[in-house]
Amino acid sequence: MFPSLSELRAAANRLARLAHHTPVQTSGCLNVLAGASLHFKCENFQRGGAYKFRGAANAIAALPDAQLAAGVVTHSSGNHATCLSLAAKLRGIPAHIVVPRNAPLIKRRAVEAYGGRLTLCEPTLAARQAEADRIQRETSAIFVHPYDDELVIAGQGTVALELLEQVPGLDTLVAPVSGGGLLSGLCVAASSLKPTVEVWGAEPALADDAFRSLRDGELRVNTDTTTIADGLRASLSERTFRIIRQHARGIVTVTEDQIVTAMRLIWERMKLVVEPSAAVPLAAVLAAPEKFHGRTVGVVLTGGNVDLDKLTGQA
Amino acid sequence: MFPSLSELRAAANRLARLAHHTPVQTSGCLNVLAGASLHFKCENFQRGGAYKFRGAANAIAALPDAQLAAGVVTHSSGNHATCLSLAAKLRGIPAHIVVPRNAPLIKRRAVEAYGGRLTLCEPTLAARQAEADRIQRETSAIFVHPYDDELVIAGQGTVALELLEQVPGLDTLVAPVSGGGLLSGLCVAASSLKPTVEVWGAEPALADDAFRSLRDGELRVNTDTTTIADGLRASLSERTFRIIRQHARGIVTVTEDQIVTAMRLIWERMKLVVEPSAAVPLAAVLAAPEKFHGRTVGVVLTGGNVDLDKLTGQA
Repeated sequence: MFPSLSELRAAANRLARLAHHTPVQTSGCLNVLAGASLHFKCENFQRGGAYKFRGAANAIAALPDAQLAAGVVTHSSGNHATCLSLAAKLRGIPAHIVVPRNAPLIKRRAVEAYGGRLTLCEPTLAARQAEADRIQRETSAIFVHPYDDELVIAGQGTVALELLEQVPGLDTLVAPVSGGGLLSGLCVAASSLKPTVEVWGAEPALADDAFRSLRDGELRVNTDTTTIADGLRASLSERTFRIIRQHARGIVTVTEDQIVTAMRLIWERMKLVVEPSAAVPLAAVLAAPEKFHGRTVGVVLTGGNVDLDKLTGQA
Repeated sequence: MFPSLSELRAAANRLARLAHHTPVQTSGCLNVLAGASLHFKCENFQRGGAYKFRGAANAIAALPDAQLAAGVVTHSSGNHATCLSLAAKLRGIPAHIVVPRNAPLIKRRAVEAYGGRLTLCEPTLAARQAEADRIQRETSAIFVHPYDDELVIAGQGTVALELLEQVPGLDTLVAPVSGGGLLSGLCVAASSLKPTVEVWGAEPALADDAFRSLRDGELRVNTDTTTIADGLRASLSERTFRIIRQHARGIVTVTEDQIVTAMRLIWERMKLVVEPSAAVPLAAVLAAPEKFHGRTVGVVLTGGNVDLDKLTGQA
């Protein structure tokens, strides 16, 4: 049900030749601004441009060829879709990606650029799941959920395995939370390897299901999906909720303005292209200084897949 | 007159505690596009956001306290101004920066953010030089030229000392050329350490003084200053012309469109924020494949100081 540390280590072994061991970068200026020692794990440099490649590639690498003959299938129009497509291509198998008809063209093109096979469906969650089920049934492709999957969580957890080695003095970890796959993986790694490390989730106030779920002690979902942090609109699953509830220190929510300001700081001061979702943890560190002041903080820059046309107003 | 290898090594020793030893990054996708093995030296991560910090900091570090009591002075509104300001601040001395009245506010603010003291002057080269001369005379501040200076060239040359160590198989170097300080430094380093390495300059066709100077065998200047690569509008000096003429393999010119395309590739594929000038060498590699195909190329990403407001159309 929950991956163990040994499953994270197995994921790290599988990913050794597949994924990038991403660098950690720092910024004296941002340290001053935060009153903390910040260590940014650059998953924007990961293959496919996001940490999602780790989970997707681990899910595929863990399976024998016989099971993968028909390929994999998922429903997503975000980084999981592109990263699963890339991981499947590297394994030489098809990836079937179910995408709502109204998904932006750039997202559909990104999936195709990585070799994914698009299936368009009506823009409802039910239609997406039904279409993925149909493909799974008809082709025997393996369904790889974006976060509610032990192998995916184990893959994402390798971010923390690397980070804890790269920054031995780390006492705090902060990462965005959406479906909770990454945060769950960090929780498993930190609680097993260094239980004194505080693990925080960071989330847009406009999509604060994790905050409400922890507060209320039961699973809540997002209904508003208008946050600029387009990678953080999903809601926790029972599985990720349980892991996070048990191990995370808490969830910090941030406003849209705080996200934009943090993203701009990362672009301007660190010269790194990150997508809005990736700026949410820095926004949280700056919004809640009482939680992070004086600490040695690992900040996961989750991805760099931003639509430059949108940014520059050309589309 | 020209710095020697030992002066570059002295600069490297001075900079060891002052400047960042910047990383080299690669991109499988850009390698395929270029048909070459590209190694990007990330000077956008340098202090002050540009390689210019190396030359400025070396010029200051080489002088004894007694000579620096009145600080330094230069005329520039670009990266040399901000980097000299930062290097002076770190040394605890004033930096007087002469800037034309019509320089963009963001550039003036950047100088001030690094502690530089602005003096506004009329927007002519003569006025800038006259004002800098006056400050030098009245305050005894030391004039640090942006490129026509042995210590500055030696500082910029440390980029190549690092890069040749970081990428042992390197057979080609390509960097933007404006006043020629960086390209001269690379020429000195490569010709001394590994004479088989081809050193190429890359320049906007709209500011192709180096190309014309090499072609004609005598110094030419730029009159048009409309290129988007705002860091590349200066012209060679006699000193840099002589070094480049002797050691550089040649100059590749690129169009404005090629610069924008290359910049976008670096942002999208490498997730690095670079300024337009920094994209000119990649533009050259893609524009002149016959010169770079199959080679192991060091590409200097010279800086990351881009005006995001301008990019996003907010100013």
